Amino acid sequence: MRRWNGWGDDSIHYAINADALSFLQARIGQGLPQADAALDHVCQQVPESRLPVHPLVDTDALGRVRHTLGQSLPDWLKMRFGKISHFPDGVAYPESAGDVRSLLDYATLHNIALIPYGGGTSVVGHLAVTGSEQPVLSVDMSRMSQLLNLDKEAQLATFGAGVFGPDLEAQLRAHGYTLGHFPQSFEYSTLGGWVVTRSSGQQSLRYGRIEQLLAGARVETPAGRLDIQTFPASAAGLDLREMLLGSEGRMGIVTEVTVRITALPACEEFHAVFFPDWDAAQTAVRSIAQGKLGLSMLRLSNATETLTSLTLAGHNKLIGLLESYLRLRGCDEGKCVLLIGASGEKSQVRHAVKSALKMTGQHQGVHIGKTMGEKWKQGRFRNVYLRNSAWQQGYAIDTVETACDWPKVKTMMLSMEQAGQNAMATENEQVHAYTHLSHLYGQGASVYSTFVYRLTGDYEHDYARWRRLKSAVSAAIVANGGTISHQHGVGSDHAPYLEAEKGSLGISGMRHLFKHFDPQGIMNPGKLLPVEDVKQ
Amino acid sequence: MRRWNGWGDDSIHYAINADALSFLQARIGQGLPQADAALDHVCQQVPESRLPVHPLVDTDALGRVRHTLGQSLPDWLKMRFGKISHFPDGVAYPESAGDVRSLLDYATLHNIALIPYGGGTSVVGHLAVTGSEQPVLSVDMSRMSQLLNLDKEAQLATFGAGVFGPDLEAQLRAHGYTLGHFPQSFEYSTLGGWVVTRSSGQQSLRYGRIEQLLAGARVETPAGRLDIQTFPASAAGLDLREMLLGSEGRMGIVTEVTVRITALPACEEFHAVFFPDWDAAQTAVRSIAQGKLGLSMLRLSNATETLTSLTLAGHNKLIGLLESYLRLRGCDEGKCVLLIGASGEKSQVRHAVKSALKMTGQHQGVHIGKTMGEKWKQGRFRNVYLRNSAWQQGYAIDTVETACDWPKVKTMMLSMEQAGQNAMATENEQVHAYTHLSHLYGQGASVYSTFVYRLTGDYEHDYARWRRLKSAVSAAIVANGGTISHQHGVGSDHAPYLEAEKGSLGISGMRHLFKHFDPQGIMNPGKLLPVEDVKQ
Repeated sequence: MRRWNGWGDDSIHYAINADALSFLQARIGQGLPQADAALDHVCQQVPESRLPVHPLVDTDALGRVRHTLGQSLPDWLKMRFGKISHFPDGVAYPESAGDVRSLLDYATLHNIALIPYGGGTSVVGHLAVTGSEQPVLSVDMSRMSQLLNLDKEAQLATFGAGVFGPDLEAQLRAHGYTLGHFPQSFEYSTLGGWVVTRSSGQQSLRYGRIEQLLAGARVETPAGRLDIQTFPASAAGLDLREMLLGSEGRMGIVTEVTVRITALPACEEFHAVFFPDWDAAQTAVRSIAQGKLGLSMLRLSNATETLTSLTLAGHNKLIGLLESYLRLRGCDEGKCVLLIGASGEKSQVRHAVKSALKMTGQHQGVHIGKTMGEKWKQGRFRNVYLRNSAWQQGYAIDTVETACDWPKVKTMMLSMEQAGQNAMATENEQVHAYTHLSHLYGQGASVYSTFVYRLTGDYEHDYARWRRLKSAVSAAIVANGGTISHQHGVGSDHAPYLEAEKGSLGISGMRHLFKHFDPQGIMNPGKLLPVEDVKQ
Repeated sequence: MRRWNGWGDDSIHYAINADALSFLQARIGQGLPQADAALDHVCQQVPESRLPVHPLVDTDALGRVRHTLGQSLPDWLKMRFGKISHFPDGVAYPESAGDVRSLLDYATLHNIALIPYGGGTSVVGHLAVTGSEQPVLSVDMSRMSQLLNLDKEAQLATFGAGVFGPDLEAQLRAHGYTLGHFPQSFEYSTLGGWVVTRSSGQQSLRYGRIEQLLAGARVETPAGRLDIQTFPASAAGLDLREMLLGSEGRMGIVTEVTVRITALPACEEFHAVFFPDWDAAQTAVRSIAQGKLGLSMLRLSNATETLTSLTLAGHNKLIGLLESYLRLRGCDEGKCVLLIGASGEKSQVRHAVKSALKMTGQHQGVHIGKTMGEKWKQGRFRNVYLRNSAWQQGYAIDTVETACDWPKVKTMMLSMEQAGQNAMATENEQVHAYTHLSHLYGQGASVYSTFVYRLTGDYEHDYARWRRLKSAVSAAIVANGGTISHQHGVGSDHAPYLEAEKGSLGISGMRHLFKHFDPQGIMNPGKLLPVEDVKQ
């Protein structure tokens, strides 16, 4: 069963091995494990629902608790410490567009705020219930998950928007296709959620981001239904898909999504290449990305992340042998690992990998074969589970990500890590910070930093720590010319930083557009855009 | 010098060879050449300007005539017959964003309609001056054409929006780069025009459409300046680029555009492959497009277009030899030619071409080498000049294009050609109609049909003929589920068909957004969106 207060299924555990734990302890000190609040106890805190009766609306406490928050660190703090101040007043599980329309009418009539709920994996506060006089209804889309149409000739598939990643891929795989969209949240996130938060998958180099995969959609908005037709491309005015992408529930509720699919690749390989230092590695990946080689993935870890991954992997002996070999080849202390993925026909994969390895070789890269890459693929969705294990040891893991143009990438990485460390230095606490470039483009890269630090066991204190770190790193992103999010979205946590990149005219443009679809402001109010000044 | 009433430079002529002329005459009858209206005569028709004095505004008749119309067939009819009913009241040639801002302020104060003017190559009536009480100012962007910034590391170049295609490519070539955007209008169209009309270049398979090439922009809108920052990708809410792309002057005036550039390819090849019939050819190109082979171009002509091209090419003897060879290989009457382009490193080109030819071979394709492809490349921008030569012989050439998903492609092609022919059948006039797929996607293709028919020599009559043909073909596009434009935009001519694909809520969404940037409605009024009901 899904954990109510952590990542994933509660039958799945990935323990941190003893060496990795020692490594962490040496870096940031011994963690202080604490007991979590019990689910029963939290359920008892749920107040009476303010919602008028509706046949689709469920107001039982357990369902409301389970739809209250996402997976951000502050969300975890609230759940683990049992400090949830606001719950939705009810949850609905629509099974059809008609159900959704009925909920929209009900919400309009009674001035109820609707929060669309996909897989609940948001890490930026998309689901947060803000304490206001407006009652709040969570709309769980998980019952709308069918494959509604498969057009093999056009390679288009239409699904209910609430379909989860594994279910979507399984339904396609049965017909020989894949969407190829694998965000780290893949196992617990939904197609509709990917669309409205502009998600990006690990193999976006081949398959594209969700923006490129989205072909059409059906959206129920308070102002009516919007059917976005499918065309391979169009020059007919504004692209309606772009009103939905990144709208984070402010526009309406997406009920059906048509995506561009691809035949399952005949062949898929992941290779690992080590570089002696960051500069050589960055130069190499930039050349590869700009060379349009037809790869499916590039993922470059900096030295600290490389070290952390090798330590987490266990297999001391093997890693020791690998490190000896790498040392002989010039990759020692500052070494950085690059994963290179290629998918497609055998000859395509062979050609793309060969071209990429030729370029890494020109920048001191040492190719160590496919084992490490295959290991990565096997464990690609497990890393998130480490947050659970780390928490049990008294450690918080938080991630912050951006994207920027190439000339800013290195400074961005250093500034983000430094900002996170500085934020905690006032308390004399150490932060273990490491970074990878998760998505590479000709123009630049996403920069994805992870911060591990100790929990105090006190909610207020831990919340303040998180807030300080998050603010400092977000400020560093803005100061260095990055977007406030490359793949997580805006939600509540990033809203204050949005105007820096969109400008006030851009922000008001978005606001204006959402008002058109939702004149009364019932759709996920308070998210994405800075809260509007009352005088306006 | 640019022709005032036809395509391109008036020093350039491409005559139709005698065989091609006989071919046309046999198909649709002898043309009836007529004398065109003289420029002087048209200048004398220009009424007094209604514009208040402004230092940047030029009201001389010649400039106003030259900014009155674009390159659509109805535009040509008006110019050639000297039947222009409305002229802009003046033309401004801003040299800076400050100039543009000053013009916007002036227009706001005096309620003047502004029509941004790039290269004047619109074929759908983007530039049309509608007769209203509001004075009209054409804003010619050609003086803002500098390369303002070149970031080699991020492969980004910033240009003044008024830069013409050849100038842009020359400035980039000097540094070893290309944008790779080659619409057929390339020689006379501008970067800003490409952006606001969602242009697509012939090699978009490698370089992407202008949507993918656009990284950032500066836009002066009546409500203020919008700076669209550059990021390689972002999940931060709505994408501001998508408010500009396809806005067709309704949002504001784009002054600077930052585009994603690529190193000049080391190698570029264009191969030709013949197929015995359309079905084999379409199946082959669909497989190739869905195989993500890394080509730069695919362009498939149907049988009539193939025959027409071979006839237009001249070189009877060579073509005769080619046809004999093709006949032996099974390609006779219904044969269709496919051009395959690849660009990049030598090994990339070799691998992509080899993979593509393997697939064409599996579908009865006969590869005839590179000569025909190279010829196509040399003449890629000349075809448009044939409109001039055909006109001189008394023939009109019009093109209509769309894009649709694969299952609709063949029916779309047949329906469009048939609709054009039927439209003229009431007069017992023949139409020579032929089609190619100009841009291929995994999901579908653009369908680009050309219609050649005789002019009558009477403006009203010829206008009615065009209107009948255009309406019939546009209706066929809508009926068969295509977009009203894949690469030309909406302008005036396609506006009535837009609601069919966007829905009323989509249309009002666009309108709402443009009102935000242009509350007074001074930006290119009447274009793109259906004219608003007065009661609204």
